[in-house]
Amino acid sequence: MKNLHKMALTSLLVMVSSYSPVRATDATISGSKTINSVAEAMSIASESMPEIKYELGKQPMKDYGGGRSNEATAKNFPISKGLAGVNMYLKPGGLRELHWHANAAEWSYVIKGHCRVTVIDPQGRSEVKDFGPGDVWYFPRGHGHSIQGMGDEECQFILVFDSGYFSEFATFSMSDWLAQTPPEVLAKEFGMPVSAFDKFPKSEVYIAMGPPPKMVPDESLNPPPLTHRFHLGAKTPQVVPGGSFNIVSQKEFPISTTMTGAILKLKPFAIRELHWHPNSDEWQYYLKGRGRMTVFGSQGRKIVREFGPGDVGYVPMGYGHYIESVGSEECEMLAVFNSGDYQEISLSEWLRSTPSSVLQTNLGVSSDIVNGLRKKQEMFSDPTNFKPVTAPAK
Amino acid sequence: MKNLHKMALTSLLVMVSSYSPVRATDATISGSKTINSVAEAMSIASESMPEIKYELGKQPMKDYGGGRSNEATAKNFPISKGLAGVNMYLKPGGLRELHWHANAAEWSYVIKGHCRVTVIDPQGRSEVKDFGPGDVWYFPRGHGHSIQGMGDEECQFILVFDSGYFSEFATFSMSDWLAQTPPEVLAKEFGMPVSAFDKFPKSEVYIAMGPPPKMVPDESLNPPPLTHRFHLGAKTPQVVPGGSFNIVSQKEFPISTTMTGAILKLKPFAIRELHWHPNSDEWQYYLKGRGRMTVFGSQGRKIVREFGPGDVGYVPMGYGHYIESVGSEECEMLAVFNSGDYQEISLSEWLRSTPSSVLQTNLGVSSDIVNGLRKKQEMFSDPTNFKPVTAPAK
Amino acid sequence: MKNLHKMALTSLLVMVSSYSPVRATDATISGSKTINSVAEAMSIASESMPEIKYELGKQPMKDYGGGRSNEATAKNFPISKGLAGVNMYLKPGGLRELHWHANAAEWSYVIKGHCRVTVIDPQGRSEVKDFGPGDVWYFPRGHGHSIQGMGDEECQFILVFDSGYFSEFATFSMSDWLAQTPPEVLAKEFGMPVSAFDKFPKSEVYIAMGPPPKMVPDESLNPPPLTHRFHLGAKTPQVVPGGSFNIVSQKEFPISTTMTGAILKLKPFAIRELHWHPNSDEWQYYLKGRGRMTVFGSQGRKIVREFGPGDVGYVPMGYGHYIESVGSEECEMLAVFNSGDYQEISLSEWLRSTPSSVLQTNLGVSSDIVNGLRKKQEMFSDPTNFKPVTAPAK
Repeated sequence: MKNLHKMALTSLLVMVSSYSPVRATDATISGSKTINSVAEAMSIASESMPEIKYELGKQPMKDYGGGRSNEATAKNFPISKGLAGVNMYLKPGGLRELHWHANAAEWSYVIKGHCRVTVIDPQGRSEVKDFGPGDVWYFPRGHGHSIQGMGDEECQFILVFDSGYFSEFATFSMSDWLAQTPPEVLAKEFGMPVSAFDKFPKSEVYIAMGPPPKMVPDESLNPPPLTHRFHLGAKTPQVVPGGSFNIVSQKEFPISTTMTGAILKLKPFAIRELHWHPNSDEWQYYLKGRGRMTVFGSQGRKIVREFGPGDVGYVPMGYGHYIESVGSEECEMLAVFNSGDYQEISLSEWLRSTPSSVLQTNLGVSSDIVNGLRKKQEMFSDPTNFKPVTAPAK
Repeated sequence: MKNLHKMALTSLLVMVSSYSPVRATDATISGSKTINSVAEAMSIASESMPEIKYELGKQPMKDYGGGRSNEATAKNFPISKGLAGVNMYLKPGGLRELHWHANAAEWSYVIKGHCRVTVIDPQGRSEVKDFGPGDVWYFPRGHGHSIQGMGDEECQFILVFDSGYFSEFATFSMSDWLAQTPPEVLAKEFGMPVSAFDKFPKSEVYIAMGPPPKMVPDESLNPPPLTHRFHLGAKTPQVVPGGSFNIVSQKEFPISTTMTGAILKLKPFAIRELHWHPNSDEWQYYLKGRGRMTVFGSQGRKIVREFGPGDVGYVPMGYGHYIESVGSEECEMLAVFNSGDYQEISLSEWLRSTPSSVLQTNLGVSSDIVNGLRKKQEMFSDPTNFKPVTAPAK
Repeated sequence: MKNLHKMALTSLLVMVSSYSPVRATDATISGSKTINSVAEAMSIASESMPEIKYELGKQPMKDYGGGRSNEATAKNFPISKGLAGVNMYLKPGGLRELHWHANAAEWSYVIKGHCRVTVIDPQGRSEVKDFGPGDVWYFPRGHGHSIQGMGDEECQFILVFDSGYFSEFATFSMSDWLAQTPPEVLAKEFGMPVSAFDKFPKSEVYIAMGPPPKMVPDESLNPPPLTHRFHLGAKTPQVVPGGSFNIVSQKEFPISTTMTGAILKLKPFAIRELHWHPNSDEWQYYLKGRGRMTVFGSQGRKIVREFGPGDVGYVPMGYGHYIESVGSEECEMLAVFNSGDYQEISLSEWLRSTPSSVLQTNLGVSSDIVNGLRKKQEMFSDPTNFKPVTAPAK
């Protein structure tokens, strides 16, 4: 009987983690993330730390002719309840067709090549914009959009969503919708003969091929007051001896109310200092070099993983973490947060703002050591005087 | 052993769907709906579409003497996590007693007859107002209220709540509360003798009978700054050849921060065009005629149902849908949304705002056909030139 | 087979209540609480009322040398999903070390003695403040802080969190973090030799002992615009014949966006009148005397419990309740709410604002009795003319 009882528990665990729900991310609120579900609480509140690494670059891609993609979602990467991501390539002319996401906003960073994007909002205002390397877009939840490769090389971009469950049964495509609507209805809707719809797609197109759009100035019929495009690559980053940090939050990009993104560049042996984000999860995509991240989970728990190009990392809200640049070249990483209001608290700033006597008592050390801890530090440590770090984990 | 394992899974499913939680609907936020629960995710993220129709009008009514009602909640209509509804009749003098809802705001539309409503807010401000056909009320979550039939005919109204779980163990009645409070306590609370409470109800009254209120001007002791009443019937609707649309959102009715309602009238053979709501679910009550709704659920999923008077329909946030008027008379329908900010994106407007070349590539059709698709359309198609539609489904 | 099925259900119940999730409490929103989880819905939507009393004072305390504490969380007190509490004592010099809570804001009331608090925010602004009896602090979710006993007697305070799940795996300590970070990394982060970290704690300190801070004026390097301290004891309470009520909400204490607290004092035989809170749960800690609380749960459900010093009580959002002072001395109680916007609706004010004819019909009583009910009442009944109440329950 005991065994059966245990089995019932096991099956519950299986069920709950398969069908775990979506984290609330509000379009208009910053600083309000919460653990919302049984599954989420279970995955975090366990004795062992949840896995923080997913080798997205090593997963097979779906190839659609005009383009290809793979994705990291809460389904294949369970810790990532609050954010999910897609790596997508479009050939010149390859069109990720008109579609919308019922439960998530979309944020994107273009890595290489160019593409043209169309988007509509509920007020009927639309924008047609071209994007190149270093550009970012943001589409509020549910707004219809398309993306088409252009120029003479493949376009690669990383899509990030403010829900780990953006994908299955929540992405709606134009061709799928039209294919499922009887031609007689379309004929009435558009005042056209039924035969006009004979050649429409019979199932979801997903990515179509067509002539690439020409490079012309942007043109939008009825442009919205807030643009969907931000030239992150053109913004001057914050530069410190150990590297650089370039951020785009709602402050710089007003439409991006629920997400923030940043490009981090860490020189070899530098460390992105110990810190945490009190109001958001962090989703990472490693672009160049190698980084080793340590995530601290309280109660004696931690997890250490090494990341290279194509790997995805994840840090839940409030978890302490730091990243060491462990390769021979600069480590470059995209970090995306599920809040439009970027917040961090760093260990060094915390120590510096705490009275010396408190630290002496807390850590049981002398004022000399405490004085050392309380010196002003940079976001990235200066690696100039450092030896290579020891062998990487896993 | 396998069977037992399966059984455990089944029992979990049973449990989770019986006790599924409430969708978050914030009193002060528009545009922020999320899938919040295991049960919700399970009911939506399945290969088959969830049922979108509930025959409320065919369900037995509870009769209380002074009135009667039945209800559609997430318990009997599982898709309806975000909104629930009640069809209620009150005889002249029939009083739906003083009560409040712990987890939901209440929106109502009067179909026929008249009633007098009382409501109190946490600042102690109260309103007493009379309602007739076409009038709407809104009570924020937790505010105490009562409704009494008046005039010389039965009053019928549809109550809609911004939680599918408003009902069981979340509706608190005055008489039930007093019945459970010892007379000695009431005597102290009110400075009255214990015997004063001898004749108080011994259990929940729910609907009482008394003399109908006389038709007199409204009178409120300490009226709130925002009224709870809106004369939707007196507002001029948006009229198009295919029908009309009359809406009341927070913009027109400031107290209604979490809900929007509308009356749609569709001429025979007209179609409420293909569209979706990026920020809310939709709860429908069919009043006249017959409508056939098709809901598109992505991934090749759709569901088609025909609705007549007394039927309830439901469309989850972000799902594409359209409604055909399929009877010989005008189809009239009440639609209620769980956001005070009404938003929709229509297929025709999306097509019109998208460059022709994108549509040619997306759909694989010529510019002639695309030009046809991109003509301006009305919210409801003009049925003048159309033949009757084919036999209705189910 | 039936038994096994039942067993599976039982195990689900066990699981779900062990791992139940956190209630959403938004830092910037008032009036927006919702039932968020399967577990929460299950614990509330049952035929029997959930237990409302937890004898925190009778639980064993964890002793750390410099201080001791015990706690009431959703784990040991299942109804308390929305708020949790800790009773903590610190000796002079005892330091509750630097730490943060990943999923909850912290509100505190000092009962006796004195302590010095440090806190940092994401803008790097810090505050160092001293607290004594009657003082309140509020730390937004995720902000780092420490608390140290001072003066010549033990300091006792009650901590309250706006999540029932603040504790396990969500409280992050400085010493634990440093112990898990290799000295080589710390050396690079702080530009110090590895040997500087030899004497650092090897595991979590939790409470350390050190020289008590001297009583000096507050000093903060870079103070935030909104202070974390409020002198509730110095505020003039609202006084009525039956007792007094002293409240601190966001209105009086602007940083406290998600919580409100109050001290209630009830003279012997007085009653805190029948009322409910439409926008928050209530967490109670009884300080003096004896109170008997009755919570009304709709559908004929109620629960009555008697509370004395050290007991914790809980009332879910929207549930009707009242408290009788049943001892020979004044009953003093701390009440904390998970909204910065305090709201209540009282039975007496509701009755007074409702037309007499509605009450006559609703309750089936004469206008004489209704007139008695509609007289203005105080928040606490005047006990002057009352006999002792009957024997307390449980």
